[in-house]
Amino acid sequence: MVKNLLLISNSTLHGSGYLDYCADNICQFLGKNKKVLFIPYARPSGISCEDYTKIAHERFDRIGYSLLGINSFSNPMKAVEDSEAIFIGGGNTFVLLNELYKNNLVGIIRQKVASGMLYIGTSAGSNIACKSIKTTNDMPIVYPPSFDALNLVPFNINPHYLDPDPNSTHKGETRETRIKEFHCYNTEYVVGLREGAMLHIAGKSVTLQGSTGARVFKKNTEPKEFNPGDSLDFLIKQ
Amino acid sequence: MVKNLLLISNSTLHGSGYLDYCADNICQFLGKNKKVLFIPYARPSGISCEDYTKIAHERFDRIGYSLLGINSFSNPMKAVEDSEAIFIGGGNTFVLLNELYKNNLVGIIRQKVASGMLYIGTSAGSNIACKSIKTTNDMPIVYPPSFDALNLVPFNINPHYLDPDPNSTHKGETRETRIKEFHCYNTEYVVGLREGAMLHIAGKSVTLQGSTGARVFKKNTEPKEFNPGDSLDFLIKQ
Repeated sequence: MVKNLLLISNSTLHGSGYLDYCADNICQFLGKNKKVLFIPYARPSGISCEDYTKIAHERFDRIGYSLLGINSFSNPMKAVEDSEAIFIGGGNTFVLLNELYKNNLVGIIRQKVASGMLYIGTSAGSNIACKSIKTTNDMPIVYPPSFDALNLVPFNINPHYLDPDPNSTHKGETRETRIKEFHCYNTEYVVGLREGAMLHIAGKSVTLQGSTGARVFKKNTEPKEFNPGDSLDFLIKQ
Repeated sequence: MVKNLLLISNSTLHGSGYLDYCADNICQFLGKNKKVLFIPYARPSGISCEDYTKIAHERFDRIGYSLLGINSFSNPMKAVEDSEAIFIGGGNTFVLLNELYKNNLVGIIRQKVASGMLYIGTSAGSNIACKSIKTTNDMPIVYPPSFDALNLVPFNINPHYLDPDPNSTHKGETRETRIKEFHCYNTEYVVGLREGAMLHIAGKSVTLQGSTGARVFKKNTEPKEFNPGDSLDFLIKQ
């Protein structure tokens, strides 16, 4: 079996509801795998895992998929072991990674994805699929045992990627400056995935989907723009 | 001796040069202490410690202070031990904290500040003076041995604090949302210091200086606005 991942920049695009803009991509990706395990650990805005699961359950129900939250299982490792598709939702990346380590899920998710379990991530859930969480935008509100993430793909994503605003008077670093700082200490490619963009990884093939494109950063190299439909296979074949 | 700290939100305000807007505050704070030790470890945009020290040296020289970078001393701990004033510049908070631990400076800075050494921080240098770095805006590009910071004051700062933009279509979390998430897992006060604002801490007294004010966040409570000149002594007396 080959790896099969759909890594989505963000769950909600301005002007539409939760997962509306990427619902078709999710349906196409899941196909006939009608059961999805949901991991709500990132708890956006600090909501409970139960409340977060309700939101995801309702949305997946509307597109014909049966979604169960991992918190409804007594043994989280076994829940992953028995799944054919998982969805890790967005929220705080540090909280998410910390919980994955706490519940001993890092190894089993890696194994299962390697043997073909479908993986969907949005925002923090896409970050976590990468080599490390070192290109998250989130506040480090809890201290995880490592910044090493699931390492399902050999590059990093910066979700919610933002182009610099030429009219801004704010002196905080731009996203591009931050990613360039990352490359002072790290070597992985970073995909700046704009809101509305996603990557489909199938084995050795990486395709940019969605409508807004991506900016790819490589150490000591000028960043490069990519458009919807472009192949980004080089991210895997480095 | 009492603690004496000047914690500045940012080093450069839109439309003016490096430390221009807060130069008078720095002069007033330092007074007759003419020698300042500079800690450049945060390396903004990844510049070298040497280049960063040059920038700070030139600026302090213009206001009549002699600034030396810690990298010019063979023994960094002894350099702090022998100083009456230090300035920790902005950049990446994770890189800065990691270097402070690596160079074994956390303990000695705490001791010296407790016995009256003047402390100036900008941005990451202000973050680091607080209880933890859990309210930084920076990317976690290196993994420090802990998020516990210098703990010179019993609260946290969020520098470069940004009010929500009502016209934004971006769906990343607002700064306020992020700080509220912090309070799901932590209890310290967080001072959202707008660019142009700073805190002067002298013993048990905390005064808001600068021109732009601050928004103070307490767990389970509505955030509160404060204006330049306001006393924020409650931050210390909690």
